[in-house]
Amino acid sequence: MELALLYSGGKDSSLAALVLDRFYDVELVTATFGVTDDWEHAARAAGVLGFPFDTHQLDGSVASEAVETMRADGYPRNGIQRVHEHALESVASRNVTAVADGSRRDDRVPSVSRAFAQSLEDRHGVDYLSPLAGFGRSAVDRLVAETLEVETGPSEQISKADYEGELRALLADEYGSAAVREVFPEHKQTYVRGVAE
Amino acid sequence: MELALLYSGGKDSSLAALVLDRFYDVELVTATFGVTDDWEHAARAAGVLGFPFDTHQLDGSVASEAVETMRADGYPRNGIQRVHEHALESVASRNVTAVADGSRRDDRVPSVSRAFAQSLEDRHGVDYLSPLAGFGRSAVDRLVAETLEVETGPSEQISKADYEGELRALLADEYGSAAVREVFPEHKQTYVRGVAE
Repeated sequence: MELALLYSGGKDSSLAALVLDRFYDVELVTATFGVTDDWEHAARAAGVLGFPFDTHQLDGSVASEAVETMRADGYPRNGIQRVHEHALESVASRNVTAVADGSRRDDRVPSVSRAFAQSLEDRHGVDYLSPLAGFGRSAVDRLVAETLEVETGPSEQISKADYEGELRALLADEYGSAAVREVFPEHKQTYVRGVAE
Repeated sequence: MELALLYSGGKDSSLAALVLDRFYDVELVTATFGVTDDWEHAARAAGVLGFPFDTHQLDGSVASEAVETMRADGYPRNGIQRVHEHALESVASRNVTAVADGSRRDDRVPSVSRAFAQSLEDRHGVDYLSPLAGFGRSAVDRLVAETLEVETGPSEQISKADYEGELRALLADEYGSAAVREVFPEHKQTYVRGVAE
């Protein structure tokens, strides 16, 4: 059974891939608006983990909307949520049995409600899986420490391919770098460098 | 890392075991009030799957409370929820890194809230995992069909070791078999017979 997992190269989506690997032919898919080359970092991480990789082109108008929303809100939550739902919808149209993401139990955003999940499944005839939805932060950290080699640092220094990089770039283009600092408070990111021995 | 998974011999907890097997030393644990020998079915299923197995003795006063609750309610939901939370609390006191159950995304009861999960983890110093929390019914059915051999039938004919069997027996003892039919509407159960080739 083919499964497309939305993949950033970070620890959560990498761990999700290892969980699903027993049951599915997992393809790691990085959704991109084509704004930056950040997807290359995800492609490299996918190669290290030994999974097939592809990019998936998203609709640029969704990025523009998301940037306007984030700028108006002064925080990224709603914009990122919108992009994640669009990415799931879009990837669900691939020829797969299931789509998945790396959402954890404690994630605030993006979050996929049970209603959205059911609707996505019904409309596209796919299963939607969030294999880490039943794992808290501490369990994920332990499993990552046991199974992956990761690098941690501030968002702007860690090469990763979530939507944030492209949305930051678009926001900077439109409104300047001060707007980016206003919308995105500094936080830690991780990037996967390899599999632990 | 040692993990105790609450195990009934049914498809959900069996699939949960296969999901966790990559990351933990999984022990399948059937919680019992010592009322019936239903745990023997779970022990057999655990043997077929090739996992170590143990029973875990629950507090009989919780069973009595649950039976009174179900009888008063006229449905089993709150009684079963109470027993499941007690079972998780109790199993969390074993010498393990994590405890887990087979809850699915679409399960109504028992359900473990994020708040209960966090509290359980904090108080016992363990991780709580519900590895199927991000899997809907359709995905679970597909994965079970691919990985397990199961038997399906009405609750009272399928040999399984969830709390229901013991609570039914206690309810029948106290209030007669009519009370059992009143509290437990008929529904399908599954029991795992083996691993698919």
